[in-house]
Amino acid sequence: MIEPGVIAQENERLLPGHEADFAALGEHLDRRGVDIATVVDKVAAFSVAVPSWGVGTGGTRFARFPGPGEPRDIYDKLDDCAVIHQLTQTTPRVSLHIPWDRPDDPARLKAHAAERGLGFDAINSNTFQDQSGQLRSYKFGSLSHTDPRTRTQAVAHNLDCIEIGQAVGSTALTVWIADGSNFPGQSHFSRTFDRYLESLSRIYAGLPSDWRLFVEHKLFEPAFYSTVIQDWGSSYLAATRVGDRAFCLVDLGHHAPNTNIEMIVARLIHTGKLGGFHFNDSKYGDDDLDAGSVSPYRLFLVLNELVDAEDRAIPDFKPAHMIDQSHNVTDPIESLMVSASEIRRAYAQALLVDRAALAFCQDGNDALLASETLKRAFRTDVEPILAEARRRTGGAIDPVATYRAAGYRATVAAARPAARSGGGGII
Amino acid sequence: MIEPGVIAQENERLLPGHEADFAALGEHLDRRGVDIATVVDKVAAFSVAVPSWGVGTGGTRFARFPGPGEPRDIYDKLDDCAVIHQLTQTTPRVSLHIPWDRPDDPARLKAHAAERGLGFDAINSNTFQDQSGQLRSYKFGSLSHTDPRTRTQAVAHNLDCIEIGQAVGSTALTVWIADGSNFPGQSHFSRTFDRYLESLSRIYAGLPSDWRLFVEHKLFEPAFYSTVIQDWGSSYLAATRVGDRAFCLVDLGHHAPNTNIEMIVARLIHTGKLGGFHFNDSKYGDDDLDAGSVSPYRLFLVLNELVDAEDRAIPDFKPAHMIDQSHNVTDPIESLMVSASEIRRAYAQALLVDRAALAFCQDGNDALLASETLKRAFRTDVEPILAEARRRTGGAIDPVATYRAAGYRATVAAARPAARSGGGGII
Amino acid sequence: MIEPGVIAQENERLLPGHEADFAALGEHLDRRGVDIATVVDKVAAFSVAVPSWGVGTGGTRFARFPGPGEPRDIYDKLDDCAVIHQLTQTTPRVSLHIPWDRPDDPARLKAHAAERGLGFDAINSNTFQDQSGQLRSYKFGSLSHTDPRTRTQAVAHNLDCIEIGQAVGSTALTVWIADGSNFPGQSHFSRTFDRYLESLSRIYAGLPSDWRLFVEHKLFEPAFYSTVIQDWGSSYLAATRVGDRAFCLVDLGHHAPNTNIEMIVARLIHTGKLGGFHFNDSKYGDDDLDAGSVSPYRLFLVLNELVDAEDRAIPDFKPAHMIDQSHNVTDPIESLMVSASEIRRAYAQALLVDRAALAFCQDGNDALLASETLKRAFRTDVEPILAEARRRTGGAIDPVATYRAAGYRATVAAARPAARSGGGGII
Amino acid sequence: MIEPGVIAQENERLLPGHEADFAALGEHLDRRGVDIATVVDKVAAFSVAVPSWGVGTGGTRFARFPGPGEPRDIYDKLDDCAVIHQLTQTTPRVSLHIPWDRPDDPARLKAHAAERGLGFDAINSNTFQDQSGQLRSYKFGSLSHTDPRTRTQAVAHNLDCIEIGQAVGSTALTVWIADGSNFPGQSHFSRTFDRYLESLSRIYAGLPSDWRLFVEHKLFEPAFYSTVIQDWGSSYLAATRVGDRAFCLVDLGHHAPNTNIEMIVARLIHTGKLGGFHFNDSKYGDDDLDAGSVSPYRLFLVLNELVDAEDRAIPDFKPAHMIDQSHNVTDPIESLMVSASEIRRAYAQALLVDRAALAFCQDGNDALLASETLKRAFRTDVEPILAEARRRTGGAIDPVATYRAAGYRATVAAARPAARSGGGGII
Repeated sequence: MIEPGVIAQENERLLPGHEADFAALGEHLDRRGVDIATVVDKVAAFSVAVPSWGVGTGGTRFARFPGPGEPRDIYDKLDDCAVIHQLTQTTPRVSLHIPWDRPDDPARLKAHAAERGLGFDAINSNTFQDQSGQLRSYKFGSLSHTDPRTRTQAVAHNLDCIEIGQAVGSTALTVWIADGSNFPGQSHFSRTFDRYLESLSRIYAGLPSDWRLFVEHKLFEPAFYSTVIQDWGSSYLAATRVGDRAFCLVDLGHHAPNTNIEMIVARLIHTGKLGGFHFNDSKYGDDDLDAGSVSPYRLFLVLNELVDAEDRAIPDFKPAHMIDQSHNVTDPIESLMVSASEIRRAYAQALLVDRAALAFCQDGNDALLASETLKRAFRTDVEPILAEARRRTGGAIDPVATYRAAGYRATVAAARPAARSGGGGII
Repeated sequence: MIEPGVIAQENERLLPGHEADFAALGEHLDRRGVDIATVVDKVAAFSVAVPSWGVGTGGTRFARFPGPGEPRDIYDKLDDCAVIHQLTQTTPRVSLHIPWDRPDDPARLKAHAAERGLGFDAINSNTFQDQSGQLRSYKFGSLSHTDPRTRTQAVAHNLDCIEIGQAVGSTALTVWIADGSNFPGQSHFSRTFDRYLESLSRIYAGLPSDWRLFVEHKLFEPAFYSTVIQDWGSSYLAATRVGDRAFCLVDLGHHAPNTNIEMIVARLIHTGKLGGFHFNDSKYGDDDLDAGSVSPYRLFLVLNELVDAEDRAIPDFKPAHMIDQSHNVTDPIESLMVSASEIRRAYAQALLVDRAALAFCQDGNDALLASETLKRAFRTDVEPILAEARRRTGGAIDPVATYRAAGYRATVAAARPAARSGGGGII
Repeated sequence: MIEPGVIAQENERLLPGHEADFAALGEHLDRRGVDIATVVDKVAAFSVAVPSWGVGTGGTRFARFPGPGEPRDIYDKLDDCAVIHQLTQTTPRVSLHIPWDRPDDPARLKAHAAERGLGFDAINSNTFQDQSGQLRSYKFGSLSHTDPRTRTQAVAHNLDCIEIGQAVGSTALTVWIADGSNFPGQSHFSRTFDRYLESLSRIYAGLPSDWRLFVEHKLFEPAFYSTVIQDWGSSYLAATRVGDRAFCLVDLGHHAPNTNIEMIVARLIHTGKLGGFHFNDSKYGDDDLDAGSVSPYRLFLVLNELVDAEDRAIPDFKPAHMIDQSHNVTDPIESLMVSASEIRRAYAQALLVDRAALAFCQDGNDALLASETLKRAFRTDVEPILAEARRRTGGAIDPVATYRAAGYRATVAAARPAARSGGGGII
Repeated sequence: MIEPGVIAQENERLLPGHEADFAALGEHLDRRGVDIATVVDKVAAFSVAVPSWGVGTGGTRFARFPGPGEPRDIYDKLDDCAVIHQLTQTTPRVSLHIPWDRPDDPARLKAHAAERGLGFDAINSNTFQDQSGQLRSYKFGSLSHTDPRTRTQAVAHNLDCIEIGQAVGSTALTVWIADGSNFPGQSHFSRTFDRYLESLSRIYAGLPSDWRLFVEHKLFEPAFYSTVIQDWGSSYLAATRVGDRAFCLVDLGHHAPNTNIEMIVARLIHTGKLGGFHFNDSKYGDDDLDAGSVSPYRLFLVLNELVDAEDRAIPDFKPAHMIDQSHNVTDPIESLMVSASEIRRAYAQALLVDRAALAFCQDGNDALLASETLKRAFRTDVEPILAEARRRTGGAIDPVATYRAAGYRATVAAARPAARSGGGGII
């Protein structure tokens, strides 16, 4: 982790500017009738999980270009995750991915994490790749495969994930499958869906009573004609079918072009089936870019739905916030720190929405002032609030600058062997 | 209607070629183990409804360019629809749109239609326009409007439509609303949806016991930020909420780019909630082009799901087949004749799919031969089957050529006054 | 126009908050090494033209719902435009549209505008509608029509527009055509393009030596299969072919989904062929929503390219800034005031980009800090700068609030007769 | 290669049906005034190149699932390509990819190919991956990299490709680069484009006088915010800038959603800059599916432009026809045989278009019959023509059935070691 002295030194350097900005924002918000301290408290209480796989450099089907100091195993990954949380004070939980992160000794893993102030969020199964030694291939599907033995193998893997998750303290399982088809005719849509539902029910049957099951939809990739859980409609059907503790997970990058994602979030809140998020950003497909880097207003509009639901005190409303990104051209630690901050930023902005005024505009069909009410909140520069929420519990006013000042990447690069570039999946 | 002698004369001219083609196709299909006579029978039994508004020239927000002989009222429209059915033998029903087609005397309208061999399919309400003398405006919504009086007016209009529909012999109501928003914040997604559900329930309460209610989703237009029933997920929620006789209607042009529509059809069949179709084609948005003119394979894949469901003998499976198009640059009668034929063509092609072979490929994950099995059916030129199905009950071997030979357009142009070009909605 | 006393009174009410915000922002920017006064000066010098047609309520093909006080003619429109400029101090020019705004007496029109502090920007021809009394229809095209007489009529109309423009003081002509096709096969792509180029050359031949010709591309609508000038590639070919004073106009809503518009802007700057903009925002198609209302970051990225080009002192770089929107659910005057402010906001944010730091990141492939550099500028709340730029020359600190306080809409509604709702173009 | 006796035996089995179908089609076409023999001759003369990388199983960033008998090197790949050509008689040329196919001894490679009846089409450079031992990384670009040394390395690689190509008999180089950015701000659009143009000019300077240079555009992937050559506009600018022997290559999967690709083809033909194609099909992005498997009508419309250009005897019109696909779930040999046939099918259908009738409809704005003229050609089942063109020079009436009957895959699977599943690029 980062030497606390480095953080202190950097914060000291930045403190005067921060305090001036914070004071000015406080006065400004006061004029708007908002108490900045309350906002800081809420922001500080808002956290998001980071994905264990996110701290390694990602890649595409064309290539992967690793950076220096790539983590070698789940312990290295947790070390990196600990830095992210240390500096941002935003990411106290990690999402594991099995088998990539399969622990030899779950208790040791749990302790390793706890020592670093980390716990575990939803655990992710993987039936989209074949593992060495695996009996049956997922080339043509997993939970929805035509062969019952392959389905059974995939179900067993998910149950195994639950077991690992229990050992480390997770309370949710995320099921994303790559099942689908590349050509019209390849799969029978209804029979395939039936097989999927049957498999999911078997997983659900093994779900501990205090766990939640997240079903994640995706329009396409790696299947390029049809996907079994292609949209929130199918996700909702599946979650509804298997039981009360099954919910829908929304990955922001898994939709058709032009889709109004915040509205899907609202619909799922309405049905009581919103389980959580995989945050990221995208311009074309499932680009897995850093949250808020391409469409920050869209991110705000999604968080706005969450704050609206909190405000309405929807019962049992506790969506999981997780990041799912691929960091191909940046230092993954930096991208995750910035992304976590962007999600908090959107949350902070959403907290500033004058909801009484908004409701008044909505009831009176004052479309212009309704729009302006949201935009006013969005364009408020809440960076001082974010910085303060980090600073006051030992985080960094400027996480990226502090991280660079600490030289963490160079340190781990010296300890961890260089990784080789890879060719992606195309050949 | 068209002078039967003209049809006879045209058919006589085309008969030798048709008979040769039909015989050759019969022999070819026989080699594939298919009895052409059975296919002709099924095709002849397949019908699709035409929309009353479709026989007038359509337009865009930029302009409308009427052609000669535009129908002046619902009686003129029925005359045009009668010609379409006479020549194609495919379109025995007409969908009315209220108030555009509000009859002074429903009994007379029903008789006028019956004399021309026509009946009535689902009736369409209109709460997306303000009618002269209307008390409350739909500018900001109808069934989901914030003002309960506007909602009540919109519900009453739908109940009125049912009454008219009962008088003329319809047994279904299609509810498409333009409700939505143009700006983030303008509408509260959940409260708006609640209001919509409440209104829809009131309409459903007035639905005769032998009627069906069709809920039609649309991604956008005329609302450009959000739509209340934006996709099949919301449509399904609504139809499920209000009752067993509520179903989802799929308009092929109402989806996000790249959406796999045939899979949505399969999902709705799976849930038992597929109500029917508005057939058309599109490249960009809700272009309302002639069915099969841009993506004939997509049309085939949709019909393939219907034939598959027929084959599996899904209980109570009787989706309504309707055309919904805007004919901006063609003679509307010609476009509707061609479109009805294209839908039948896709149905005929789907009947030729070797389903046993397809299931075998699907079970064995033979993606290539599965794809080829569909393509083989699709590329069979079934025109002789379509022509024969028309010809044997008095229709035309070549409807467009016969229509032109008959000079119908010139005849009605002489009787009906010229319509003025219009400026669309933008100014 | 608005009573100056109302503006003064509103500004007085808002001044304390404004001064506090402005001072705080000045101090903040000073810490970032930016002089706020310089930014205010640049922002105050940045203007954008409003479209004459934008002050009337717009509509869709489904319906048009006018509001109270719709302008009856170009004089009413200029009155409304004058209010927009008076309050925002941002919109000193108006774009005319012929024949909608054809003046009986151009000199009188010019004087009427000048009295209100207004001049004229690019003039727009209209060959996408048929005017009453027009000899040849544009149903099947105008500048690219197969009939040379129709092309000649369309060319003559454009030359007529130039003449009017000269009389009122315009120095540019914008040519947007609706020519295209609805079906594969309807048009021969190359022959159609040749006819277009020949017509455009004839217009160019009549272009005064101090004028510019703007060619505007659009992917689709009202043609739904192909458009003659469908993208910037075709626009560039046309502008290059006809001459040095022909340029490409970019309407932000005229692109395929997912298109990187700011990159097209950069390419056109690179070729020296960027003529200007039609600003608006959109989520699905050519939605013509208020600038910055859906994707404010995209708007910023576009303006960022303009500021970058200014910074690099590209020779002869003077793109026209124009708004082109359809205000269907808001008071058009309010939408145009807000939109003009949003464009200025994006410009102000772009001025705050630390370009030396950005170039350093770009040269060093520091993708993360490059992204953060842009985002930091974007998230700066520049509202105090905008307000100050308006206030110091007599505009309103809060244009919408001041406009409402002044009761302008009620005043004109009393003087102008109510407009009837219309049915759009579909029937 | 396949034992000729197997082909003879399979053809004998299928001959009676084929002869009956061929005779019937000949009679039918005769009634339409078309001589089938002429069409067969033209189809037989139409060929398409296969990509060397296409005979291996492809993958995605998530996983790659190899099949049995994966080719180990370029010699194995040529053996597989030879089978494809032997059975389809359609693919006499192979496109190499360097360094994947770098020959130890080009002369030996050329001879190996010639013995199997194969030659070489355009050669492909690869600067989107880092090769082991490579001095400078392409992580942040190649031809447009900020570091001149990296650009020089990339240019040298392309010149090396030309040298290899000359040795084996190629006469064209295809340059596709992955250069772009993942975040707004990461790259300066104009400076990056300038660097690209300069590098391309250096490659062009090394182009033999009888060679062509193909510039391939792509909207996104692996870069997810911007791509240097993102569309045909940028491709055209680049090809025009560097010289007369530089042309634009169109990959059907490299466009924004909804793009009218056949119109881009027409535009490039119009400018004289169409270099050729990478054929494939797609539903969502660059899905690289089998040609004609998702949108066969679109493929037809593209080929229709080529036949139209042939008909107009455009000077120097000789676009390269190449397949570029990723075969993830099928036997790659089967997919390539079917794809080559689909491209020929679309060509054959396009030959059947009654161009005089089409031109007549176009000139008279008969949109409906123009559309019908194309559709009539498209729906003609030309399989007998394709089969005859294959059969008469020793190919298979049914290539897939014959390939399976021959047991080629099992034979090579016995000789070639099993490949391991891979994890794609994401970790």
